[in-house]
Amino acid sequence: MARRRLHEVLSGRRLTRLEYEHALPVLQGQMLDAQFELRQEAARAVLLIVSGIPAAGRSEVVNEVLGWLDPKFVTVQGFKTCSDAERERPPMWRFWRVLPPRGRLAILHGGWYQDLLQQALEHEGSAKQLGARLQRPVERIVQLERMLAQDGFTVAKVHLHVSPETQRKRLEKLRAEKTTRWRVTAEDRRMCRRYREVERALEHCLDATDHPSAPWLLVDGTDAQHRALEVGRRLLQALQAATPVAAVARTAGARPGRRPSLVRKSASQAAPAATASEQQYDRELERLQGRLALLSRRKRFAQHAVVAVFEGMDAAGKGGAIRRITAALDARQFHVVPISAPSPEELARPYLGRFWSQLPPRGNYTIFDRSWYGRVLVERVRRLTPTRDWRRAYDEIVEFERQLDEHGVVVVKFWLAVSREEQLERFNERDRNPLKRFKVDPEDWANRKHWDAYRRAAQDMIARTDTRHARWTVVPADDKRQARLQVLRTLGDRIEAALD
Amino acid sequence: MARRRLHEVLSGRRLTRLEYEHALPVLQGQMLDAQFELRQEAARAVLLIVSGIPAAGRSEVVNEVLGWLDPKFVTVQGFKTCSDAERERPPMWRFWRVLPPRGRLAILHGGWYQDLLQQALEHEGSAKQLGARLQRPVERIVQLERMLAQDGFTVAKVHLHVSPETQRKRLEKLRAEKTTRWRVTAEDRRMCRRYREVERALEHCLDATDHPSAPWLLVDGTDAQHRALEVGRRLLQALQAATPVAAVARTAGARPGRRPSLVRKSASQAAPAATASEQQYDRELERLQGRLALLSRRKRFAQHAVVAVFEGMDAAGKGGAIRRITAALDARQFHVVPISAPSPEELARPYLGRFWSQLPPRGNYTIFDRSWYGRVLVERVRRLTPTRDWRRAYDEIVEFERQLDEHGVVVVKFWLAVSREEQLERFNERDRNPLKRFKVDPEDWANRKHWDAYRRAAQDMIARTDTRHARWTVVPADDKRQARLQVLRTLGDRIEAALD
Repeated sequence: MARRRLHEVLSGRRLTRLEYEHALPVLQGQMLDAQFELRQEAARAVLLIVSGIPAAGRSEVVNEVLGWLDPKFVTVQGFKTCSDAERERPPMWRFWRVLPPRGRLAILHGGWYQDLLQQALEHEGSAKQLGARLQRPVERIVQLERMLAQDGFTVAKVHLHVSPETQRKRLEKLRAEKTTRWRVTAEDRRMCRRYREVERALEHCLDATDHPSAPWLLVDGTDAQHRALEVGRRLLQALQAATPVAAVARTAGARPGRRPSLVRKSASQAAPAATASEQQYDRELERLQGRLALLSRRKRFAQHAVVAVFEGMDAAGKGGAIRRITAALDARQFHVVPISAPSPEELARPYLGRFWSQLPPRGNYTIFDRSWYGRVLVERVRRLTPTRDWRRAYDEIVEFERQLDEHGVVVVKFWLAVSREEQLERFNERDRNPLKRFKVDPEDWANRKHWDAYRRAAQDMIARTDTRHARWTVVPADDKRQARLQVLRTLGDRIEAALD
Repeated sequence: MARRRLHEVLSGRRLTRLEYEHALPVLQGQMLDAQFELRQEAARAVLLIVSGIPAAGRSEVVNEVLGWLDPKFVTVQGFKTCSDAERERPPMWRFWRVLPPRGRLAILHGGWYQDLLQQALEHEGSAKQLGARLQRPVERIVQLERMLAQDGFTVAKVHLHVSPETQRKRLEKLRAEKTTRWRVTAEDRRMCRRYREVERALEHCLDATDHPSAPWLLVDGTDAQHRALEVGRRLLQALQAATPVAAVARTAGARPGRRPSLVRKSASQAAPAATASEQQYDRELERLQGRLALLSRRKRFAQHAVVAVFEGMDAAGKGGAIRRITAALDARQFHVVPISAPSPEELARPYLGRFWSQLPPRGNYTIFDRSWYGRVLVERVRRLTPTRDWRRAYDEIVEFERQLDEHGVVVVKFWLAVSREEQLERFNERDRNPLKRFKVDPEDWANRKHWDAYRRAAQDMIARTDTRHARWTVVPADDKRQARLQVLRTLGDRIEAALD
């Protein structure tokens, strides 16, 4: 058996900052396009599985790549020890539960490979016996991946590797810092001590599950920028494979010379010509994100959870503000839930049901991009719900949020207040920019005609649902940057208050 | 506060067999009609909450009433201790998850009252302090029930009561028998010793949550027949309240003089004019159901689970056979899942997903009335799926069932083989009988035209998916009784083999 050896992947390839900064914007643009097309066509779905030896940078890569995407249509799943419900069912049950619907992308930390590797590591005996022991688990995986491929699910699998020296150094560095110590588990340390054994087991697992429907990409995890671009490119390829050629060509042709970046710029990435106020913004953004990151890792945070609600007129900047939050968090710690018209199945149940079902477990965030307040906004204004029903929703919502509060969930609600003029400006800008044109749909122009009715509805909403346990924060949003900073500041304050 | 005292409900009312046998068929007929209308209108849903002091007959009543309904469209939920996922969320989360969609009926054992009663019992202090302590839990409940009522969910709440003597006698009797001892928990015995305290706490809880949107019905649980009819009548009322008056009137007018019973007749209930063969059938049915009941309560059964699949031409008798199984089981132990055309959300995911999501936890049954085999039956015959997709489904199904088997799930698959002539006879009989007419829809006649194609598809299906770990049993179904007996016999044999 001509098995690939993992150490061969350690090419020592490093990127200069210049190379990275040159490559990234193009890749980002293509990824956003491809993600948009994926969603539009809704014919296929993409699964990205990120595996790796401990300290090879799995979480970092996922967080980085996630920052380049529209987080509204991505879910990130980690798999810790099985829950009661999972233990009761066959092993693959928990993975079936998280398969994304067509049109979406899901990123799985380790995915179904975590259990496989565990089994390989627990094995004591010959390589041949190991092969026999893993036969069925491998069969299950290959069968699932083949079925997914045939069903229109593109499965991209990347595995990150580093040398034993790099691994040891990184784990030591993480353990040395108080804020990062929690990230090094006993399991990591055990695996570090048994590096060669782990490497052999990984090689076995990777080799056994490398098949044409879902081949492995092995990536050198030594250089942070190199590995991020490699994983990003593999994901781009998967996203493009998942959309018909015609669609990809269509957007490719539409690409303009200059692409407005939709992602967080860290201070170091900022263009050299940044103005003083831009630099100030970047610094403040980074500070607030850092604070949020630390708060979310405090021990007491594990006793709470966060539900953040974003409401506001179209083009108020909800998506941009949400991306500034998620960039600060661990990808396994949050879900962004975009809310649009309910499905028939959702309509068959009480309207709060679909929000209840999305509540985060302790230690996690759920961020709602629009929310249950649709009941007293769009459903009221566009007369989708009888008056008596949306009227009673105020009390129902207050009670709902009160129950969250009683359970220790921090409920933070933002109304991004954009002016009518600024909205028009943004619509027009989007219309002019082929890459943003998809962000405005005819419905948005229709909603604009109901501006005054929406404003009235929003005022009533805030007046009736601004309670001690779930305050509204009205954020002036004509200045995007100030709005984002205020959102991050408020969120941090509210979490801090809850933890103290 | 003019509180009702629970002991006042103990009227000592008993029914003679004659009274019961006179009342039951009429009630059953009305309930089936009302349930059918509920489903057709799909405008409202019904929740029946069954509460009671220990040994008042809660489970017995639920099982009894369930036997009068079409179990395909009813779910029964018990609430044991919280799972991990439930503990992570606010207390009402687990109830929101089980709310039925419009058109359905859900029966909740204890429902949200179990926790409330628990809190009341744990309280040590004055009645006034108890009131303060329960204020928020009561508010949550009343608010939920009021919202449900306004949203078109009829909530029927019944509470069963018995005297301390009856309670003690029943618990002693259950403990004396090996096969029923498991039913008496330490909690039951503790509550039995504290009868008066429990009674006071119950009175407090019932009183606090008795409101016009969802009033309590207090029922004397002393006589089994009396309590079953009382609960059945309350449920009928709820079902009828949930359907527009016109619809109820329509079926009421259509009712014929003699109503064919759709439910299990126990030997004692059989009409005196039963023939020898009928009596023999009844005896054998009861024996096989008893055996299944005992098997399902064996200690080792808790390490397994059962997935039963029913396939067959229209009118082959799938529903009737399923009802004979469920009549033998505890209502909290099984779910019947009727499978029809997939929803858009289900179509957006791999087709096996909706079956994976219904797998039972250990110690439970899931009974599929039609199943994943639709992929290679109706989807093949009616050309709903491309050939390459249904062709590969054979292997995917074999792998799926193998994973169930590996996890200790007993997979039992029945093909009920009815002849073309018998099917026609049954269609015609249903057409003649206004109460059964709803069971034949135009689609059934269309399917009949494809008889030969279905037969070929069924033959291929059985040939390709009859595996060691998931055998098919072909049941000649022209004789309904023999078919039901064979189903029960096979199911019992398969479970017994798995447990030994």
